[in-house]
Amino acid sequence: MTDSAKEPKAIPAVDLVAFCMDVLRACGVSEAHARLTAEALVSTDCWGVFTHGTKLLPGYVKRIRAGGIRTDVEPAVVREGPAWAIIDARSTLGQVSSAMATDVAIAKARSAGVGYVGVRNGNHFGAAGYYAWLAAREGMIGMAMANDIPSVAAPGSRTAVTGSNPIAYALPAGPHDPILFDAATSTVAGGKVYAARTRGEPIPADWLIGPDGLPTTDGSLYPQKAVLTPMAGHKGYGIALLVESLAALLTGAAVTWKVGSWIFDDPSVPTRHGAAFLAFDVRTILSEGEFLKRIDALIREIRATPTAPGVSRVLLPGEREWERRREYLAEGIPLPVDVRETLRKLGSEAGVSHRGL
Amino acid sequence: MTDSAKEPKAIPAVDLVAFCMDVLRACGVSEAHARLTAEALVSTDCWGVFTHGTKLLPGYVKRIRAGGIRTDVEPAVVREGPAWAIIDARSTLGQVSSAMATDVAIAKARSAGVGYVGVRNGNHFGAAGYYAWLAAREGMIGMAMANDIPSVAAPGSRTAVTGSNPIAYALPAGPHDPILFDAATSTVAGGKVYAARTRGEPIPADWLIGPDGLPTTDGSLYPQKAVLTPMAGHKGYGIALLVESLAALLTGAAVTWKVGSWIFDDPSVPTRHGAAFLAFDVRTILSEGEFLKRIDALIREIRATPTAPGVSRVLLPGEREWERRREYLAEGIPLPVDVRETLRKLGSEAGVSHRGL
Repeated sequence: MTDSAKEPKAIPAVDLVAFCMDVLRACGVSEAHARLTAEALVSTDCWGVFTHGTKLLPGYVKRIRAGGIRTDVEPAVVREGPAWAIIDARSTLGQVSSAMATDVAIAKARSAGVGYVGVRNGNHFGAAGYYAWLAAREGMIGMAMANDIPSVAAPGSRTAVTGSNPIAYALPAGPHDPILFDAATSTVAGGKVYAARTRGEPIPADWLIGPDGLPTTDGSLYPQKAVLTPMAGHKGYGIALLVESLAALLTGAAVTWKVGSWIFDDPSVPTRHGAAFLAFDVRTILSEGEFLKRIDALIREIRATPTAPGVSRVLLPGEREWERRREYLAEGIPLPVDVRETLRKLGSEAGVSHRGL
Repeated sequence: MTDSAKEPKAIPAVDLVAFCMDVLRACGVSEAHARLTAEALVSTDCWGVFTHGTKLLPGYVKRIRAGGIRTDVEPAVVREGPAWAIIDARSTLGQVSSAMATDVAIAKARSAGVGYVGVRNGNHFGAAGYYAWLAAREGMIGMAMANDIPSVAAPGSRTAVTGSNPIAYALPAGPHDPILFDAATSTVAGGKVYAARTRGEPIPADWLIGPDGLPTTDGSLYPQKAVLTPMAGHKGYGIALLVESLAALLTGAAVTWKVGSWIFDDPSVPTRHGAAFLAFDVRTILSEGEFLKRIDALIREIRATPTAPGVSRVLLPGEREWERRREYLAEGIPLPVDVRETLRKLGSEAGVSHRGL
């Protein structure tokens, strides 16, 4: 580091968790809800997925202050059976209802083999992959997904039809890092469009549909006048509708245009997002040892795959994220400058020490 | 029809079912297995998905005659719990074990809310969407998926890493046709490469990876010297691995390269495919009336979406297939000429009347 004044310092993960918790508690969030939320956001930063980490905190705080996110109630199981439950999030923080839903899905899977938990009246939940990982840590195949306000076209549409409706899963892998997959069902997430715009770059022609219903390379049109394209055309559209079905149609959450925008809409009004979580208990269905033996062989096989010119190795889903996590836990999280600035401002407003930010 | 000698006649679906059953019974297949298989194949033809319909029959017959597909045993549930089961297909016809697995998933979902059934020692099962539809007919959200011998690259690989690993789902929609989605996790299915080659056309540069690890437009390289690309790059690769996990890692089926090719490998040796089926009981989890009201609103909303220039309307997944089915059930199935010829030949060899073929 040649110029410590310009190079942002890395922030220890524990300090970032403490900062987030302080900010949330200063807004009236309970210790338990603050911890669940801070751990989800900072874990996501540790993967280097800065678009879905602590960057989200100011938006959440705005909604907490305005009343759209509630801090005075707990999510509750409102319907359940041997292998499923529906949770009314009661508009608590998305991380809180999602962590609870994951716990319930794990418990159902322990007794029934498989657990499905749907969430209604939810909020934006951050990175879907975090909850899938919570299940994988308990020896489960975990899945997580959510709907959102429409921002993605269907093949042939001029306007948005589905949200970017992310789908994630995680597989326990014994001594290996879990296989971890988390993707929006759009060609790219909206954050990539913003990033290209910030850099003043045109975007590839297959990312956006403009107001005339045709592809556009003008990222400045998004999100007001352009919509994202679905990944792989009709395939992404179809998978987005599967997510909408399990996360919203079946849960009683708001569907498509009835979902509120957690960024643009009145922060005093709940967004009523839906989400869904699945757990498959590997120990019950196969046997932990047998599953780990089989996934070990698959991981070794993929790592030994011959590569294209210039490619050093074929990566497993999540491999880069786990490498970053090890690095960031050891050396601190290199939060992007814009995120640090936003968090410092947020800390000042909340009367909370910035610590190393 | 100006020239009845050249225009192939459409074949009544009932006649095609009867023909398939006659052929299968002539090979020693039981009445029940023959019916399950014939109905799956002809239903797929009725959707106009001719790549996965009766076109498959000669390949199945070859394996039955050689012993790789067994006709003297029944698939059996070998492990189960409240919300799940593992079925050993015992190398019976893929349609037989898959229809049974769907039935078991539906029964588990009726009692536990959700049902997951994995299949090991399976065979090629045709169109995944058919089994998802069987569940939707019973008021369930149905899902079906399967692994296959690797034919699809991972990002950066020179060779295949996963099968085309299809994933399908179907949603009950009351008076509307079910929403029905069925897609390979490759950019396109191998059948599209064969079709382009037959027409003598180059293929788009994003369909295949050639033997040097770089994209190629030469369809003749597939499948010996080229591999399919995953849909949407790392996203399709990730979803293919999810399918591999639920259909094979967790079920005890053969994984990736251990799966046999049902077309190219010794037909006397079982292929040991894996498959997975999920059912979510809408009646139990939400309520049938509420779910149908919600999906009706979603369908109307999607149909009312403004369209891109030259597009008459936004289609729901499966919409074209249901339109074809109505047409073909009323007027007969316009089987492609090559499929008719293959079936006629098959009928002659089996000593079975071709009827209207």
